[in-house]
Amino acid sequence: LGFGYPHLVEKKIKRLAKILEENSVESAVLLSKGNFLYMTGIDAVGAVYINPSTEEYVAIAPLMEFWKVASEVEGKMKVYAYSRIAFREDQELPLILGGLEEAVRSFLEKDASVAFDIEPPQSSSLSQSLSGKKTVNAGKEISLMRRRKTEEEIELIKTASEITERALMKSLDQLRDGTTERRFYAELLRNLYNEGADGIAFDPIVAFEENASNPHALVGERKLKRGNAVVIDAGAKFRSYCSDMTRTILYKAESYRILLENLISAYNSALDILRPGVRAKDVDMEARKALSWRGLEKYFIHSLGHGVGVEVHEPPSLSLLSDEVLLEGDVVTIEPGFYMPRKLGMRVENTVLVTEKGGRPLNKIGLLIEI
Amino acid sequence: LGFGYPHLVEKKIKRLAKILEENSVESAVLLSKGNFLYMTGIDAVGAVYINPSTEEYVAIAPLMEFWKVASEVEGKMKVYAYSRIAFREDQELPLILGGLEEAVRSFLEKDASVAFDIEPPQSSSLSQSLSGKKTVNAGKEISLMRRRKTEEEIELIKTASEITERALMKSLDQLRDGTTERRFYAELLRNLYNEGADGIAFDPIVAFEENASNPHALVGERKLKRGNAVVIDAGAKFRSYCSDMTRTILYKAESYRILLENLISAYNSALDILRPGVRAKDVDMEARKALSWRGLEKYFIHSLGHGVGVEVHEPPSLSLLSDEVLLEGDVVTIEPGFYMPRKLGMRVENTVLVTEKGGRPLNKIGLLIEI
Repeated sequence: LGFGYPHLVEKKIKRLAKILEENSVESAVLLSKGNFLYMTGIDAVGAVYINPSTEEYVAIAPLMEFWKVASEVEGKMKVYAYSRIAFREDQELPLILGGLEEAVRSFLEKDASVAFDIEPPQSSSLSQSLSGKKTVNAGKEISLMRRRKTEEEIELIKTASEITERALMKSLDQLRDGTTERRFYAELLRNLYNEGADGIAFDPIVAFEENASNPHALVGERKLKRGNAVVIDAGAKFRSYCSDMTRTILYKAESYRILLENLISAYNSALDILRPGVRAKDVDMEARKALSWRGLEKYFIHSLGHGVGVEVHEPPSLSLLSDEVLLEGDVVTIEPGFYMPRKLGMRVENTVLVTEKGGRPLNKIGLLIEI
Repeated sequence: LGFGYPHLVEKKIKRLAKILEENSVESAVLLSKGNFLYMTGIDAVGAVYINPSTEEYVAIAPLMEFWKVASEVEGKMKVYAYSRIAFREDQELPLILGGLEEAVRSFLEKDASVAFDIEPPQSSSLSQSLSGKKTVNAGKEISLMRRRKTEEEIELIKTASEITERALMKSLDQLRDGTTERRFYAELLRNLYNEGADGIAFDPIVAFEENASNPHALVGERKLKRGNAVVIDAGAKFRSYCSDMTRTILYKAESYRILLENLISAYNSALDILRPGVRAKDVDMEARKALSWRGLEKYFIHSLGHGVGVEVHEPPSLSLLSDEVLLEGDVVTIEPGFYMPRKLGMRVENTVLVTEKGGRPLNKIGLLIEI
């Protein structure tokens, strides 16, 4: 990749500074775990403080996570560790003694106006120190900013998707008569890391035949048999960005092809209408309609998809209850499935970028795999 | 193992019923994620409702997790799914339409007194429906109950520990000149599942030499060299119970033996004083003193350990800030380490049961491994 993570951090700081300008606010404090992960690349209980006018760009991390955060944001943010115990007081480490909120307070003192990403807890020492200051909840704007993925973010998700695909393809020859779910799962995990994953976006799902009638199945000692459908749902992380993909693999199971093709049709129907301005719930409904024509809709018992970024589930939700409208730059999953109790389940899923020209899948391997 | 998970669920219900009796309360509602996991074995946003007088033993699970929960608590608790969308309304599935709190409310209506494990959110529909009822916060008592592990729970943690040890030993021959951290990590993960893990208690840590100076290091492309110390921190889950173990492996690195032996001495010093009635902070201090005699204390920048059960970090905390006293049945880690910035880090860790006779390590393999 032609850019480092610090470059991406710089870009994100600029986007945040723009939100502050639009709200006429001096500084921003991000406290949610998801936003800390977004800004620093590290999944920890920390805070980010930004003040463009004084050029303070700060990450406050738990002591144990200090080194990880420091290496991710190198040169773009100043990193402080916080700890209630004075470990390493004699070292070069910038340590703030106390809890996270106390650490954050010390940065806010001089600011007359602050934007937060969440409502600070009413009872906290932090909220007490805000009296007399103008505060703004910019949570919604930050969420919208995160939804519009930059070119670099899209490249990272694409790389994570490629790693996932290579890991799956390399694992396929382990699907043989008698292979257990657990053994295949172990193989898949190994391949995810060997192909370059920095982590996994979620615990993968590997389910054979009737076990796949549970959409979130756990692995067991079930053995693969001729005529089985195999559902594999997995996603690598690359530089803190997630991927998410599901394939249903037909193992000498020609008679299931028509069912799988029906599911793929539902995927395609939803993909076809994906574009900026479309309501998220209409995309869900489109897949549901396509399955309904085929008698499968009553077995489709979850929402169609969700946003993907540094979190594997983030806005928007492609659900019947969603009131969101798709934006250019949204990266979402489309994942129709059906689950026939105690019999059979299938799901197909790609991660898809929303562009002015429509949905562009970031996965490349086909949806119909028969071995 | 000579007992199923449902047997364990039954035992937990009885323990909970005893707390209700002692508090003269009719029913209990558990809302924290950790307590739901403790009662059902499944890590999900759900609730448990228990009313011994009416013999209602209920788990309320998100629709997607219904089948997992149902299979874990089979015959011992009735399971309901909750969902805001009426998927599967025509099926046998007991579905409650709405959010979790609305689902919980319907069970509480007739009860005059209820114990909770957490303070229900002030603004919620749940807290409104409690007016006129006696409510008790039994969070502390439930936490103490969870700390006193039963014989069956100890067996499960022991099995998880054995899986972790077999996986580590099977991976060791991959530690050769030029092996990368990532490749070894992939191998270790595969072996954890192949040896019978149902999941992992946390993302393992594999760090060579200077990378191990970060206690929570991420894997990279670093290659193993003669003279390196290798820190491996990993834990399998077995039937929802966690294990947690760290070994520092000396790879043709005789000159490091004395440092590792010093660390092991600190471990032994702490283990020696572990027994019911001892203050958790004194155990931490004991290891710190032992390291101090050897000039390593200033590099020991985290707490000595933590409780282990269905959560990999649960009470008690073996920390200087802890005000807890050890109990018979506590299962805790003892994990001293030292971290010399940009140079070297080492840590050793066992999971240890607190008995009347002292600390009994649930790990069996030695702390000093040289290859």
